Amino acid sequence: MRTSQLLEQLMEGLRCLPGVGPKSAQRMAFHLLQRNRQGGVQLAEALSAAMTEIGHCSQCRTFTEEDVCGICTNPRRSENGLVCVVESPADIAAIEATGQYSGRYFVLMGHLSPLDGIGPSDIGLDLLEQRLKTEQISEVILATNPTVEGEATAHYIGELCREYEVEASRIAHGVPMGGELELVDGTTLSHSIVGRHKLA
Amino acid sequence: MRTSQLLEQLMEGLRCLPGVGPKSAQRMAFHLLQRNRQGGVQLAEALSAAMTEIGHCSQCRTFTEEDVCGICTNPRRSENGLVCVVESPADIAAIEATGQYSGRYFVLMGHLSPLDGIGPSDIGLDLLEQRLKTEQISEVILATNPTVEGEATAHYIGELCREYEVEASRIAHGVPMGGELELVDGTTLSHSIVGRHKLA
Repeated sequence: MRTSQLLEQLMEGLRCLPGVGPKSAQRMAFHLLQRNRQGGVQLAEALSAAMTEIGHCSQCRTFTEEDVCGICTNPRRSENGLVCVVESPADIAAIEATGQYSGRYFVLMGHLSPLDGIGPSDIGLDLLEQRLKTEQISEVILATNPTVEGEATAHYIGELCREYEVEASRIAHGVPMGGELELVDGTTLSHSIVGRHKLA
Repeated sequence: MRTSQLLEQLMEGLRCLPGVGPKSAQRMAFHLLQRNRQGGVQLAEALSAAMTEIGHCSQCRTFTEEDVCGICTNPRRSENGLVCVVESPADIAAIEATGQYSGRYFVLMGHLSPLDGIGPSDIGLDLLEQRLKTEQISEVILATNPTVEGEATAHYIGELCREYEVEASRIAHGVPMGGELELVDGTTLSHSIVGRHKLA
């Protein structure tokens, strides 16, 4: 027995959020209605604006409502000529949070996956090739995920860089900081041994 | 370094949902932008409509966009003359899910709490009193939460019912089904002993 159609539509709508099932959706809907209608209205406005207006940066393909994103337009980010290639905009957020990197990015929005029909042009490699050709890029840092697809994608882009005589590097893989050696998996540990470096 | 102001507003907006922190908000925002923009637009519309149009039923005070909710207008729900008093609309959803109850409801939208300045009229007891006076109500089932405030509220409404010579009952408290006796807390167990009933 329904008491409100709008309420049911709201609960149904909330379920499109990842990790939200029927129970959480109900809790969220009642919370907003009972305690935070103003927040709900603001969320509706933010959602509507974001879904319709956010597109991709014409240079690095990350999410932005501008033609070119704030990082690409910042002249101080292009000083060192570095371009970091990542799989998703969330990776940019993670790298920015470290404060360790001050160059620009290039977002693939995925990875090469021939079995799923995802080829180089689907992940914007034609645009990257154009940039390698025309821009002053000193080094491409390959920060794709350490998965089979991510490694293959990094390898492919590395070959592309070699073609245009641009230096390419891969982020280091090894034992994560703060972990215990005996708990680290074998693949990671062998990477950390193969990738060892001399003490200064 | 921000790449999109709308994206940040969206992540900020999502944090008004209960149980959503900065990490979940980011994950939700990227999920919608990358995989389900249509769902995001629908959610925005549902939210906006729900926040502005949903009010309270003039008879039972539950959430509805109509003047009187679907349960109160259904003549079959008033046949048995039962009215179940609950603290929140979520309680109605829980009771409806059991399929065990076919009467009407009355939603307090809270409980008596003199220390917080919440008196009888704040939880709609003037409206309930009006209904006790004018309607044919055979029994009021008190289904407030088994907390100190919920018990006090149930007691208060019980007295109100006695005044208007309407029968009042309290839902049973005891050992939950499927649980193990040794894991049940002492208060619940003593309730289940005091509230024991003869085998038929």
